[in-house]
Amino acid sequence: MADYEIFEAGDVTLQSGIVLPAVRVAYVAHGTLNSARDNAIVYPTHYSGTHTSNAWAIGPGMALDPATYFIIVPNMLGNGLSSSPSNTPAPHDGPRFPLVTVRDNVLLQHRLITEVFGITSLKLVTGFSMGALQAFQWGALFPDMVERIAPFCGSARVSRHNWLFLEGCKSALMADAAFAGGNYSAPPVTGITAFARVYAGWAWSQTFFRQNLDRDLLGLPSMEAFLSLAWEPSFQAIDANDLLAMLATWQAADISHDQRFDGDFAKALAAITARAVVMPCRSDLYFPPEDSEIEVAHMPNAELNVIPSVWGHMAGGGRNPEDAAFINAALARLLADQAVNS
Amino acid sequence: MADYEIFEAGDVTLQSGIVLPAVRVAYVAHGTLNSARDNAIVYPTHYSGTHTSNAWAIGPGMALDPATYFIIVPNMLGNGLSSSPSNTPAPHDGPRFPLVTVRDNVLLQHRLITEVFGITSLKLVTGFSMGALQAFQWGALFPDMVERIAPFCGSARVSRHNWLFLEGCKSALMADAAFAGGNYSAPPVTGITAFARVYAGWAWSQTFFRQNLDRDLLGLPSMEAFLSLAWEPSFQAIDANDLLAMLATWQAADISHDQRFDGDFAKALAAITARAVVMPCRSDLYFPPEDSEIEVAHMPNAELNVIPSVWGHMAGGGRNPEDAAFINAALARLLADQAVNS
Repeated sequence: MADYEIFEAGDVTLQSGIVLPAVRVAYVAHGTLNSARDNAIVYPTHYSGTHTSNAWAIGPGMALDPATYFIIVPNMLGNGLSSSPSNTPAPHDGPRFPLVTVRDNVLLQHRLITEVFGITSLKLVTGFSMGALQAFQWGALFPDMVERIAPFCGSARVSRHNWLFLEGCKSALMADAAFAGGNYSAPPVTGITAFARVYAGWAWSQTFFRQNLDRDLLGLPSMEAFLSLAWEPSFQAIDANDLLAMLATWQAADISHDQRFDGDFAKALAAITARAVVMPCRSDLYFPPEDSEIEVAHMPNAELNVIPSVWGHMAGGGRNPEDAAFINAALARLLADQAVNS
Repeated sequence: MADYEIFEAGDVTLQSGIVLPAVRVAYVAHGTLNSARDNAIVYPTHYSGTHTSNAWAIGPGMALDPATYFIIVPNMLGNGLSSSPSNTPAPHDGPRFPLVTVRDNVLLQHRLITEVFGITSLKLVTGFSMGALQAFQWGALFPDMVERIAPFCGSARVSRHNWLFLEGCKSALMADAAFAGGNYSAPPVTGITAFARVYAGWAWSQTFFRQNLDRDLLGLPSMEAFLSLAWEPSFQAIDANDLLAMLATWQAADISHDQRFDGDFAKALAAITARAVVMPCRSDLYFPPEDSEIEVAHMPNAELNVIPSVWGHMAGGGRNPEDAAFINAALARLLADQAVNS
């Protein structure tokens, strides 16, 4: 039995103009919506993750406490639970699945919370990595509805370098002839494994490996064991076209791709009037703090709160207790309207 | 007509114990060896480069001035000019080419300069990237012979993270079934192109791309043009087994892999008594300054001189005038026995 709900969104005209029929958004909700419908939080998922990947940050005593808040975790399209290449019928199946943007995801999430729950204001939108992309997008699209955003280990648009890192991963997967332009009959395991191995170099920092923290993480004796036993299987479990659909969403991410902003990134950032705490990790190789600094400088009500970790991007993944505590504490102060940097 | 000389080294027992027959080291020499034979400099090549890649740092008025010094540029084995998978006869051809270590390269270079030129002391060994690996190795192997070393954008051993980045590149190439375990009849172009595209994410810094310096470099209008027109062809011109042979040399690099040091990296660094100027680039993603700091701390006569550039690893490639001038100035002060950091 599925541990999630489905929002049936019907036929949806995407940002590209393509109509995707019978769109489904898988989601979970923690806690209870109060009678004023004003205790809701949205916490979208990250690349290659599902709602279960976000569970670490939700619970009794945490900032995202279901006893206080109604916390909705919508699954990003392409992740295999919401509409994705792997679960969409012809003619939009597999490699024919259209580009879904971050904006498309957020507009669907907006429909979910308004149509299903009648919510008109959000206490917070937060998210890790591609979840952070969605949090920024929420802030830019619905400034009157979103009180706070807390994007961590992410950005308001894909940087050119981030695009390039993703392009490398994609090229590795597609170098496997078994991928067959997405029309594979059996999973292109060689390509997915190469994809994962390329990705691994980016996920943590140089210092993480210098300090042998990969060994501490799982007790595996070597990096080869870490890669082949722990890292690669998590990607091998995902459909290749799904991996590439989410990657396409990421590579296209930019909150200024909107008629109101017409590509003016500074203008789009300035539209985020929500109180924002932007939390890059000091050692993140694809969302480096410099990008966050630029973003915060253009946002009217934002503060920068750098995660002081050597875990690189994965500081936001919830596996390192110190980083998880840092993020949780910032979310708690933000929700309590206290200064985050003190 | 070849623009280089060949040192015929005969049959060579490699560090692995394997005997590689009829080994050849391609090299060029700039300038004239003086009668005391004490004006020689060795400047080994870097990954995927040849002696021509080093030419930018050699010339009249440069620190490496052929009017003053006798500058020998030996090509690293595996680069297609010295003994390599692509030019070695059976049974050591193609994927059967044995592992050649940095130490093997340096011992061959030592034979070249002693047997061919009768040189017994070196003013300097310098090098970029894998050339820097060789400079460290020279210092550790021949402390009584090497007066100075100046490794830039490199390290004394492959870091675990650096190993991982290389593993990602390798996996991308090998994901192409046309590679066929190295027994290809036509070049595995798809795999080499994926290799190059993965590599591109590492070669410069995030800031390099944030500042659009790739556009300034060649005047190409997009990153896609930069990759497909400028970057990937330079790799597509290299034999796939050669690419992997040099990569294997890199992944195995460690100056402490020596009977005298028995894997004790600090001890191996302490053996480098040459005056050393170690020059990482501040934004290098695979040889970050932190590794150089650790190395310098263990070396008895070394100073750190960080290249203040956003060009990442490619700060050492000679294409950016400011970085080239920075490196050249440091080499000049080192050769003049002046403090490099003042």
